[in-house]
Amino acid sequence: MKALRLLEWKSEPVLVDVAEPRPGHGQVVVRIGGAGACHSDLHLMHDFAAGQLPWGPPFTLGHENAGWVHALGEGVTGLEPGQAVAVYGPWGCGTCPRCQAGADTYCENLAAAPVPGGGGGLGLDGGMAEFMLVPAARHLVPLPAGLDPVTAAPLTDAALTPYHAVRRAWPKLPPGSTAVVIGVGGLGHLAIQILKATTAARIVAVDTRADARALATDEGADLVLAPGEAGADVIRDFTGGRGADVVLDCVGNDATLALGAACARTLGELTIIGLGGGTLPVSFFGLPYELSVQTTYWGTRPELVEVLDLASRGLLRAMATAFPLSEAPEAYHRLAAGELVGRAVITP
Amino acid sequence: MKALRLLEWKSEPVLVDVAEPRPGHGQVVVRIGGAGACHSDLHLMHDFAAGQLPWGPPFTLGHENAGWVHALGEGVTGLEPGQAVAVYGPWGCGTCPRCQAGADTYCENLAAAPVPGGGGGLGLDGGMAEFMLVPAARHLVPLPAGLDPVTAAPLTDAALTPYHAVRRAWPKLPPGSTAVVIGVGGLGHLAIQILKATTAARIVAVDTRADARALATDEGADLVLAPGEAGADVIRDFTGGRGADVVLDCVGNDATLALGAACARTLGELTIIGLGGGTLPVSFFGLPYELSVQTTYWGTRPELVEVLDLASRGLLRAMATAFPLSEAPEAYHRLAAGELVGRAVITP
Amino acid sequence: MKALRLLEWKSEPVLVDVAEPRPGHGQVVVRIGGAGACHSDLHLMHDFAAGQLPWGPPFTLGHENAGWVHALGEGVTGLEPGQAVAVYGPWGCGTCPRCQAGADTYCENLAAAPVPGGGGGLGLDGGMAEFMLVPAARHLVPLPAGLDPVTAAPLTDAALTPYHAVRRAWPKLPPGSTAVVIGVGGLGHLAIQILKATTAARIVAVDTRADARALATDEGADLVLAPGEAGADVIRDFTGGRGADVVLDCVGNDATLALGAACARTLGELTIIGLGGGTLPVSFFGLPYELSVQTTYWGTRPELVEVLDLASRGLLRAMATAFPLSEAPEAYHRLAAGELVGRAVITP
Amino acid sequence: MKALRLLEWKSEPVLVDVAEPRPGHGQVVVRIGGAGACHSDLHLMHDFAAGQLPWGPPFTLGHENAGWVHALGEGVTGLEPGQAVAVYGPWGCGTCPRCQAGADTYCENLAAAPVPGGGGGLGLDGGMAEFMLVPAARHLVPLPAGLDPVTAAPLTDAALTPYHAVRRAWPKLPPGSTAVVIGVGGLGHLAIQILKATTAARIVAVDTRADARALATDEGADLVLAPGEAGADVIRDFTGGRGADVVLDCVGNDATLALGAACARTLGELTIIGLGGGTLPVSFFGLPYELSVQTTYWGTRPELVEVLDLASRGLLRAMATAFPLSEAPEAYHRLAAGELVGRAVITP
Repeated sequence: MKALRLLEWKSEPVLVDVAEPRPGHGQVVVRIGGAGACHSDLHLMHDFAAGQLPWGPPFTLGHENAGWVHALGEGVTGLEPGQAVAVYGPWGCGTCPRCQAGADTYCENLAAAPVPGGGGGLGLDGGMAEFMLVPAARHLVPLPAGLDPVTAAPLTDAALTPYHAVRRAWPKLPPGSTAVVIGVGGLGHLAIQILKATTAARIVAVDTRADARALATDEGADLVLAPGEAGADVIRDFTGGRGADVVLDCVGNDATLALGAACARTLGELTIIGLGGGTLPVSFFGLPYELSVQTTYWGTRPELVEVLDLASRGLLRAMATAFPLSEAPEAYHRLAAGELVGRAVITP
Repeated sequence: MKALRLLEWKSEPVLVDVAEPRPGHGQVVVRIGGAGACHSDLHLMHDFAAGQLPWGPPFTLGHENAGWVHALGEGVTGLEPGQAVAVYGPWGCGTCPRCQAGADTYCENLAAAPVPGGGGGLGLDGGMAEFMLVPAARHLVPLPAGLDPVTAAPLTDAALTPYHAVRRAWPKLPPGSTAVVIGVGGLGHLAIQILKATTAARIVAVDTRADARALATDEGADLVLAPGEAGADVIRDFTGGRGADVVLDCVGNDATLALGAACARTLGELTIIGLGGGTLPVSFFGLPYELSVQTTYWGTRPELVEVLDLASRGLLRAMATAFPLSEAPEAYHRLAAGELVGRAVITP
Repeated sequence: MKALRLLEWKSEPVLVDVAEPRPGHGQVVVRIGGAGACHSDLHLMHDFAAGQLPWGPPFTLGHENAGWVHALGEGVTGLEPGQAVAVYGPWGCGTCPRCQAGADTYCENLAAAPVPGGGGGLGLDGGMAEFMLVPAARHLVPLPAGLDPVTAAPLTDAALTPYHAVRRAWPKLPPGSTAVVIGVGGLGHLAIQILKATTAARIVAVDTRADARALATDEGADLVLAPGEAGADVIRDFTGGRGADVVLDCVGNDATLALGAACARTLGELTIIGLGGGTLPVSFFGLPYELSVQTTYWGTRPELVEVLDLASRGLLRAMATAFPLSEAPEAYHRLAAGELVGRAVITP
Repeated sequence: MKALRLLEWKSEPVLVDVAEPRPGHGQVVVRIGGAGACHSDLHLMHDFAAGQLPWGPPFTLGHENAGWVHALGEGVTGLEPGQAVAVYGPWGCGTCPRCQAGADTYCENLAAAPVPGGGGGLGLDGGMAEFMLVPAARHLVPLPAGLDPVTAAPLTDAALTPYHAVRRAWPKLPPGSTAVVIGVGGLGHLAIQILKATTAARIVAVDTRADARALATDEGADLVLAPGEAGADVIRDFTGGRGADVVLDCVGNDATLALGAACARTLGELTIIGLGGGTLPVSFFGLPYELSVQTTYWGTRPELVEVLDLASRGLLRAMATAFPLSEAPEAYHRLAAGELVGRAVITP
């Protein structure tokens, strides 16, 4: 079968022929319906060198995947060939407390994971091929009625990541509260939808780009603004002077982190989602009292079930453009050039 | 009556005569039984200048107070003259949601507070005098049976502050978890007691001083160590490689914050309690995933009730040395010189 | 001024002249804009006798009130004459931990409350008069922009009560969960709106009346049914066999409680809101494992702030019909006869 | 090998020869070090008939088990022969959300479980034999250092069950709160220890038997009493009139449930743990407002890890008497006769 593979660090991926995978005990082969092309893939192509990660090329790209069960390994129960499934992307050891709670993202026994800190499309073969090997049946989540693999694929990362950040902030988001989403891109526009669907918080969206701000308005943000000198003051005024209860920074550079801290409320929450490379200096008098600052990485398997439920009911929808596998390189070029609105989904 | 007052910034406090206070409507005058001398008072004497704070001298020192109800203003109900009480120190506006929840510490209408961001001994007259005016009856918490004002006074700050930090971390401290207390001084040794009394977490104590480490061992810490190059590794090994679930930094300088971050677990919590002036740079790849970092300031009124309950049952005890009011200046000198074990409590 | 007063137990209320109230220290007189007529008032008129309650007639009816600040007693700060306010109805002692947390509903020092277990319109003079005396300024919640007293009045009870029940159930209502509302009347139709606004749970509504079921559909319920022999099975099927995560029984008779228990999920929640007089026998093998069963009474002051926020943004709207004070007796007659759609609001 | 088996309903178990089990794929055979004899086993022998449960004899008794890994089936990783382990007793389907969260107790796909609603010693062969087959490696929890299988075995049920009940009640058990344990038997005396180790709540213990009350005192209960007409009043007085925050009823008959409800606080929690066959009638005015009433069944796998941690550190210790396998029938006779202090543990 054809697969889009990264053959070495600092190279463009290429379409090559590889053998179809066969499932071992407890494993499943999935026929891919959709595989999302993610910005982080561009980092994989361009920014890493040997030794920086505990894994490396060659491997097939694609870590946002959904499709249909194709072949079941021995001992797999509860799945049927032909069944539509999403692939939970982070693959941990499966036996540590974190993995047993469905949070492979924070696996604490990485030496026993299929690949330490990676997964399909991240060191192991991903979904940009006709078939993909999933090393444990627990990583497959059946698609609810009304949701197809092409629609579901990007949700497994682009929606699951902000969903995890919003969900942990729920207790701080009752009616009357305010959530700020910085960066209305692939993750940010879904963060707005998730906030709308699961809370009654007011939503403030911040983006430098006019079209992103327009999108935020369409998604239902209550206040939309460009960052700037007065950004934090405008947001603070909007909250009656108290500050934002929750800030979700989907950009994560120095400036957005500083904005987030400047507009946040005491006892609030500032979560760093975007990989913008920024640093926030935290000190006793430098931030609102008891503002909790943290990063967040991907999400848990139970949360993926919840994301898919939202999507199946029309409460969550990722903007996406479909490309056949043969045009996957082109999709990445357009992604790199900033020419795509929403996610590119490869449909092998 | 005599009172120990700070008359101007950058000066030593002096014992002077002042008029006895009289209670207005809703107010209460407390006869002081004990007033703790706090390190932060030394900062007030030496480190501030006009304009840096929204309040300033002259005022009577003492923000950790307990005593007996002396005179009730009109309209005060539920208190009796002679009743032993602790004074809740942070005094907010009383009507914002934070104050209504008992968290005057995070009052959001400071313009309507008795003094913005201060309280008795912090801009207003505190407890280093025979009598003290408390501007609202709600700030008085009756002492439970078996607890006297001299013992209770330092608990209103030195115990309430770490109690608040520990209490917010309870969900992360089930059996099998580990809490690290950095700095076994006035707050730290109480943090250890609070952890012992309210959780079954393992406790690691870190201090540069041998006598502080000995104290930590006496209080029941499971592992006691001096910081050093290998500190984080030793702690991580102690936790089976996972890292500490909760770090309470009662020092708060650059080095202790770095140690805290280095030994913490993913999904853990690092709380900055000490005013050591340090800064922790927070970035996506610089900290364990989803480690929440925050400051914390003092505590809430309901939490003070809980602190006093622990103390009345012998589960919490601040080491303290009593001084008459006439020796209060001497007490501060010895505090500054590091000659005191535990808290100095002035007994007017 | 005119007031609709209950002069003795087991009688119809009458319009009589009473003196206008004057505010004492800390008190506020409110000019009433709207006072809701509640089913529980009918119980007061018809079902009680002397000695059954710790309070009794004569008093002015009306325990769901909103209006404008008319006169401030000494010592009241933070309110301005003319300001639009809602009246928080349950009035406790104000100093016990429950009252200090804003939950006067569960005051633990009732002997020190204005009237034990009652309030304005419940033993003390309520809002069915031009003016109403509120015994403490903390019971007044400023109306947010866009919300008028006639609209707000019924929300202080008919919305606050189900809001409290829904809010406590939030942790059990993530996407994919199911909430069942039994009884789509005054409280139930607001429960549906609150669930829609604050969660992404699926909503099942149950009512014997076709028009109530039609209303539930309009409000956005996902499944609407009449109770009946197969009711629990239909609901269980709708949840994929798992059962409902949360059941809010706004009727509360034996049959509805039995239905609620029969359709609930293990680890779920069944809350008795309606005063239907029913009893649910709870035993080890009689209910799903760890289904928590509880009553709930009214709500807290912070929750009223949240309710008003929802209403001001159009996310919560009580159906209501306005009557002048002179027609208040008629309004109660029509309420008793079941001729009213939604709440009757008296507008003095 | 010898095994103590129940051959038919309403019979005494007998020691017979059976084949040693061999592990299939993903399975593990454990050499049993200790198997607890539980009161519920007596129910199995005497009180059930064919058709009442979805499973039945013949099977080997013993559902509280610990030992050493003896043989690993194919595909099992993370365990070593000879390793000391406890057996998590409830065995669900392994793939539903409840099982994936480690709560096999509340499995929602029982048709796919090894036996619906049962486990080893409950329909499948249990631990009263030299070897026991465990159908999935995830059911084995490594024993922490310092804990041997004989000590650990009864903890897997007799401690795990009250631990689950206490843990869910933690938010209601801060300093100043009161927990009531009704019935100081096998579970109750461990409930007291768990409360002491993990909270600072005051503990009230209730038992009809003088020796059980003496045991409660030894374990550190703050108030110990026999039930009786005045029981609820005594407890309410002990709490300053508020009532108990949490009631754990380890007996569960009509009288103990009524006592629990009568002494509980508004917003409190009453958990039915004991299988005493009682019923509590729940109605709007019959219980304190918002007292949550629920049953609870066994516990989760992560909770078992926590229980074993407590035990390994000396914070939790089940009283037990060891019997060789040949004397297991005698152990049950003495259990039935009430002649045993603490648990009987069979050591094959």
